[in-house]
Amino acid sequence: MHSPVRVGLMGLGTVGSGVVEIMAKHAEQLAHRSGGPIEISRILVRDASKTRSVPVALERITTDAGEILDDPSIDIVVELIGCPGGRVEPARSYIAGALERGKHVVTANKDVIAKHGRELIQLAREHRVGLYFEAAVAGGIPIIKSIKEALVANEVQAIMGIINGTTNYMLTKMAHEGRPFEEVLREAQEMGYAEADPTSDVEGHDAAYKLAILASLAFETPVAVDDVYREGITRVTPEDMAYADELGYVIKLLAIAKAHEETIEARVHPTMVPKEHPLAAVNDVFNAIFIEGDAVGELMFYGRGAGKLPTGSAVVADIVEAAQNIRRGVDGRLGGAVREKRVLSPLEVVSSYYVHAKVVDSPGVLAQIAKAFGDHEVSISSVIQKGRGEDPVSLVFVTHKVLERNMQAALKQIAALPVVRSVANVIRVEGE
Amino acid sequence: MHSPVRVGLMGLGTVGSGVVEIMAKHAEQLAHRSGGPIEISRILVRDASKTRSVPVALERITTDAGEILDDPSIDIVVELIGCPGGRVEPARSYIAGALERGKHVVTANKDVIAKHGRELIQLAREHRVGLYFEAAVAGGIPIIKSIKEALVANEVQAIMGIINGTTNYMLTKMAHEGRPFEEVLREAQEMGYAEADPTSDVEGHDAAYKLAILASLAFETPVAVDDVYREGITRVTPEDMAYADELGYVIKLLAIAKAHEETIEARVHPTMVPKEHPLAAVNDVFNAIFIEGDAVGELMFYGRGAGKLPTGSAVVADIVEAAQNIRRGVDGRLGGAVREKRVLSPLEVVSSYYVHAKVVDSPGVLAQIAKAFGDHEVSISSVIQKGRGEDPVSLVFVTHKVLERNMQAALKQIAALPVVRSVANVIRVEGE
Repeated sequence: MHSPVRVGLMGLGTVGSGVVEIMAKHAEQLAHRSGGPIEISRILVRDASKTRSVPVALERITTDAGEILDDPSIDIVVELIGCPGGRVEPARSYIAGALERGKHVVTANKDVIAKHGRELIQLAREHRVGLYFEAAVAGGIPIIKSIKEALVANEVQAIMGIINGTTNYMLTKMAHEGRPFEEVLREAQEMGYAEADPTSDVEGHDAAYKLAILASLAFETPVAVDDVYREGITRVTPEDMAYADELGYVIKLLAIAKAHEETIEARVHPTMVPKEHPLAAVNDVFNAIFIEGDAVGELMFYGRGAGKLPTGSAVVADIVEAAQNIRRGVDGRLGGAVREKRVLSPLEVVSSYYVHAKVVDSPGVLAQIAKAFGDHEVSISSVIQKGRGEDPVSLVFVTHKVLERNMQAALKQIAALPVVRSVANVIRVEGE
Repeated sequence: MHSPVRVGLMGLGTVGSGVVEIMAKHAEQLAHRSGGPIEISRILVRDASKTRSVPVALERITTDAGEILDDPSIDIVVELIGCPGGRVEPARSYIAGALERGKHVVTANKDVIAKHGRELIQLAREHRVGLYFEAAVAGGIPIIKSIKEALVANEVQAIMGIINGTTNYMLTKMAHEGRPFEEVLREAQEMGYAEADPTSDVEGHDAAYKLAILASLAFETPVAVDDVYREGITRVTPEDMAYADELGYVIKLLAIAKAHEETIEARVHPTMVPKEHPLAAVNDVFNAIFIEGDAVGELMFYGRGAGKLPTGSAVVADIVEAAQNIRRGVDGRLGGAVREKRVLSPLEVVSSYYVHAKVVDSPGVLAQIAKAFGDHEVSISSVIQKGRGEDPVSLVFVTHKVLERNMQAALKQIAALPVVRSVANVIRVEGE
């Protein structure tokens, strides 16, 4: 048996505790599988006096990051302090500091990787160490590894993911129980799935960070968080849910990235997906990532996107891989950008659309709206009219694929029609 | 750039052509990703005069395996000749010969790996080379890599897989169109999904080989093909499909393996799966593998289980990994058995059951059958009675979980009841 590989753990919150628990429970198996023992030799916490849910030796606890970064016996730094309040510091500096000191780094920090991944990968390359972040996207699902290794023979053409568990839980409740957004949000907050300030989840920020990471890796081109077009789920109504069902769709918050010859697109928004699509059956807090490669065709990965043990499972897998590489004396496989494709602006993107208009109930209304669509080359694939005799009545359209620029022009014209009370909602349709 | 890694390709059938096509199309990307060029320097075929669907230089073609095995410049042997007629020779000898000569081996050969994987892994270990077989199970789905690497922090508790595309296509047709087995089999044969002799697929042999490989890896214990209990789909009727639908299930040919404290179970049989289960939505020729780990919870991998490019994608990913390891001067991660768990006999396995009995339409019949179940501690969760006034009428039961030994005893007693015309079908229920 070799001498132990030493880990410095930064952060002992939910995921950190999961890592300690898994490594204690499976110590023997992990030692066998990685070629020798792995030891957590020091743990950085904010408050050393706090009671812990997992047993850790008091003498390993420290409140001084330097005791990990400057300890030459520590081989791997596992950064799990996250970004409270959205601040990447001190996490970013800790990761950079560890890499600069020749330590391998494992992190679950989506904010730091989405914002600073490129420079950190470069830093890791310079210092010939590994930077592993499987746990930063979709918890226990091995999507990062699969893109980097299993899909190596492919040009990845598209990614469509349900990568925020909170909103998927909410949309599942809305779809199955016909309840409104506000009500399921309150319930999700009571169950601890949504935070007191739910903005990051329901407005799609969390998914946008994760998509920036996935798209950067899959397309080998830099994709910044701000490059990702973003729309939340707050405007999805029970009425939209019912129309979706009638039209053969379910509504999911999808993170979508597509690669074209010279450009890419990246967007997070509520999306109607055909009921037969594998993503349509992904319910509750589960995550799933659907990928299309030019050789492998369609692949989907499904599992738990968050939680102590699922995310801990991904972190420990990364630790084991780092330990194996250390024992074999090789660098990690870093990947990273090799080209610079332009990211399309939202107006340049092609999609199908669901459009729900509230209109005056009179003959000729449909013709006027259809003409507005036609004027901008938007072609209609289906129409539903509901509430005959009420005021307003609902007119629901699903379009064929169209450039968003044309769609926006058509919508502007439609909203200005005297017979149209309002354009109640517009939701993109994908996966057909 | 490093000097090229040289590949000797054995077999230029469907998958072999896919490998040549992918490596030609993505040569640059593969060279970048694996740290240098990869070159197919020799190709073994049976008939050198045959016209090929992919462009290969004539001087690289050989009909003599020795020209690959005994060529010291060849680093990686890719064995894709398969097992025509179920014969593992000469594929097994080629693989063993390559390993003995210090060559890394990539194969898609499920028969050889299922039957001789253990000794070949041992041989690879002795000669410090890699043996890669991602393509042997579920085509383009990276299930082998995920079990070996992504799930390293888990004890795998259960595997449930749809790992035979032909039967999944047939069962999908039967379910959606209400057509009988023989008819969809003919159609599958016409479409080239099923072979002229469909035994290997429809009797579950193909799935049993793959399950033996998956279970051996996931549980790190040897599982022989003959250890896998096996039942085909030939007895599934449109009537069973309709009852399944009514009860909230779909029928899939599942490959199931579960780990217990001291034992494991492994079985392939038609299975009723709840409609909400992620496997229920896997249709047509698609494959999917559902895995439960003690840390990660439920994971599912979905994709194409066969075909030129999907399987080629998995083979090329293995070639790239082998090339990386060769360049870095390290062995592949071999895995392999580290314990010996006993495989349960079918009678020792616990499952729920669907039982379809044809009975005389008279009062008291239900009571007699219920008593027979009760006598053997089989508890009933639901009953459907159909065809009132006909002779015979159908009585359909779904049981709670029960030991198969008890179930068989109950069925024997039921079949002997004078009021029972026949026990038309018995199908296991899983995934609840």
